[in-house]
Amino acid sequence: MSVIKCKAAVAWKVGSPLKIEEVDVEPPKANEVRIKMIATGICRTDDHVIKGALTGIHFPVILGHEGAGIIESVGEGVTELKPGDKVIPLCIPQCGKCSSCLNPHTNCCLKTHISKSQNLMPDQTSRFSCKGKIVYHFLWTSTFSEYSVVPVDAVAKIHDAAPMDKACLFGCGFSTGYGAAINTAKVEPGTTCAVFGLGGIGLSTVIGCKTAGAARIIAIDINSTKFNKAKAFGATDCINPLDHTKPIQEVIVDMTDGGVHYSFECIGEIETMKAALESCHLGYGTSVIIGEAPSAEQITFDPVLLFTGRTWKGSIFGGWKSKESVPKLVSDYMENKFNVDELVSHTFAFDQINEGFELLRTGQSIRTILMF
Amino acid sequence: MSVIKCKAAVAWKVGSPLKIEEVDVEPPKANEVRIKMIATGICRTDDHVIKGALTGIHFPVILGHEGAGIIESVGEGVTELKPGDKVIPLCIPQCGKCSSCLNPHTNCCLKTHISKSQNLMPDQTSRFSCKGKIVYHFLWTSTFSEYSVVPVDAVAKIHDAAPMDKACLFGCGFSTGYGAAINTAKVEPGTTCAVFGLGGIGLSTVIGCKTAGAARIIAIDINSTKFNKAKAFGATDCINPLDHTKPIQEVIVDMTDGGVHYSFECIGEIETMKAALESCHLGYGTSVIIGEAPSAEQITFDPVLLFTGRTWKGSIFGGWKSKESVPKLVSDYMENKFNVDELVSHTFAFDQINEGFELLRTGQSIRTILMF
Repeated sequence: MSVIKCKAAVAWKVGSPLKIEEVDVEPPKANEVRIKMIATGICRTDDHVIKGALTGIHFPVILGHEGAGIIESVGEGVTELKPGDKVIPLCIPQCGKCSSCLNPHTNCCLKTHISKSQNLMPDQTSRFSCKGKIVYHFLWTSTFSEYSVVPVDAVAKIHDAAPMDKACLFGCGFSTGYGAAINTAKVEPGTTCAVFGLGGIGLSTVIGCKTAGAARIIAIDINSTKFNKAKAFGATDCINPLDHTKPIQEVIVDMTDGGVHYSFECIGEIETMKAALESCHLGYGTSVIIGEAPSAEQITFDPVLLFTGRTWKGSIFGGWKSKESVPKLVSDYMENKFNVDELVSHTFAFDQINEGFELLRTGQSIRTILMF
Repeated sequence: MSVIKCKAAVAWKVGSPLKIEEVDVEPPKANEVRIKMIATGICRTDDHVIKGALTGIHFPVILGHEGAGIIESVGEGVTELKPGDKVIPLCIPQCGKCSSCLNPHTNCCLKTHISKSQNLMPDQTSRFSCKGKIVYHFLWTSTFSEYSVVPVDAVAKIHDAAPMDKACLFGCGFSTGYGAAINTAKVEPGTTCAVFGLGGIGLSTVIGCKTAGAARIIAIDINSTKFNKAKAFGATDCINPLDHTKPIQEVIVDMTDGGVHYSFECIGEIETMKAALESCHLGYGTSVIIGEAPSAEQITFDPVLLFTGRTWKGSIFGGWKSKESVPKLVSDYMENKFNVDELVSHTFAFDQINEGFELLRTGQSIRTILMF
């Protein structure tokens, strides 16, 4: 195994466009694999990093965390994967040994960035360099590169026949939204849901609510052009806050005789997080935060909202224990248990990555997929 | 049935001591009962009203919401209760018909003060007057009176042999704390819990955690004299924030390798609510707000605490559907399933009510019971 020279999109510093560079990708060390990336989605969390809104990231860095690829080589001690296997890198690992992995109620493996930086491989070195300079990893996935090295705890083997331009969605967007409804909120049949933000995560949440049997799904976005797709996925009511003079949470409370059973914040804005909580019915309403807020932003709210029986919780990667669940989700998709194809609004060549980010920032895309 | 003249403690205005007055108590109207009070506890929520820290209360008012008494007379249409029955007035009613009562996940009946004022009987008149002036009800219970009129939806019939000086605890303190652990948090065996505040509610929460099989129960109070009793109820570790230079949530995180499974705020202070959330382990920690914060106080916190898998929720009256649960709780107590006797630190005559409040304010009492 030798160093591979290939193309990658490097974020050199906060605020600059990504630059396609030739990078060196070292071979995988023990318990690591090197993946040839086939497809990757663009997610708002990547854009948060570009804008400097997430702390704890080292620059220069190769971003991207929603990829699908093929094992190119494996490091010492890796027996569960072999070259040619189709895989998805996991932005939330599943080590299987930590107290979180052993706890049935959480998927927050203690090897994630929540607990420790994932800017370097577990041995505290990087496999990437460019022009003689170290380039950092991101969430151990770094899918904006033709090749990436990932610890084996953060890789899921998927079905040999999986279509890679869709399978990558299971590495973040679809799994996150769908799982927030199914695992985190545990939406019950016949209930009413409100989904704030109709990007890839929000629409996946709509799919989750629909699959769980919700009777009414209220979809909220300031861009009404997203409503047709939301309805196709199962939304029963679509509302645009810009069409109302009252705060949208009051509109929802009025529409639902006191509030919804479940609400989901799929944007990452603290004002929407509060509106989503306030949209819930007292006594039994549950609000789930799915969008990652920019670092250091604080929410101020009235604790009476919780005291009176509402529940506020968060969901990372849809609550799925990643390594064991992603293969099943991909197989379910291949058996047509749910359709994610319509989540892809644009497919570009990898070189067009900055155009993809521009569509995200201007709200024109749902999910843009880059093909290598 | 005629008007009864009797003694009651009237709160004439915010900030004044309660005054024992002769009041007129009208007969119960349709679907109401008149109760001869035997015993009542003093709770911090009553003190919040005296201090003007709860909004939506009308003065003058007869406070008190943790009572036990005997039916003196019943209004038209009341068939389930008869004079002589031992009862507990319920600060959270259970009408059995509203959407909350029909929902298995909540006890927040829409007839509670959360939804509508309970300052008057359902027909929007008061049964109390003093010196020719209207005196308002409080939570429909108003147990600081020798006689009180209560809607039948807010009365639970209890065991004929129940000792009234202990049974009154099931009207608020014990049920609230115990149920927060059992029903709201659903504490699982072998877990670690943190209980903030060791008054009557906090100690009842300790009993609930112990009953649920928690392996470790960390009890927190700034008054170390409460630790012996906490240990008797099942606390395994007692810590005083004043003994530490670090914030108490950091002390707890260090003690527990990352945080507890469940934390409970039993005081009603927003800073403690935040500390309790921060004491929870990422991924699976659940924090329950039991203490009622003074109105209009807002909490400011970092949403990443929720995004990373913690759950924040509230509990009113321990999540018990009141009318059906209180009789069972009292019966369980009489079968020695749990011992609440030690929660009573002082027993006074009703006339000594202001002394009881003084003990509460100075942290000297757990529960003071007033006997009529």
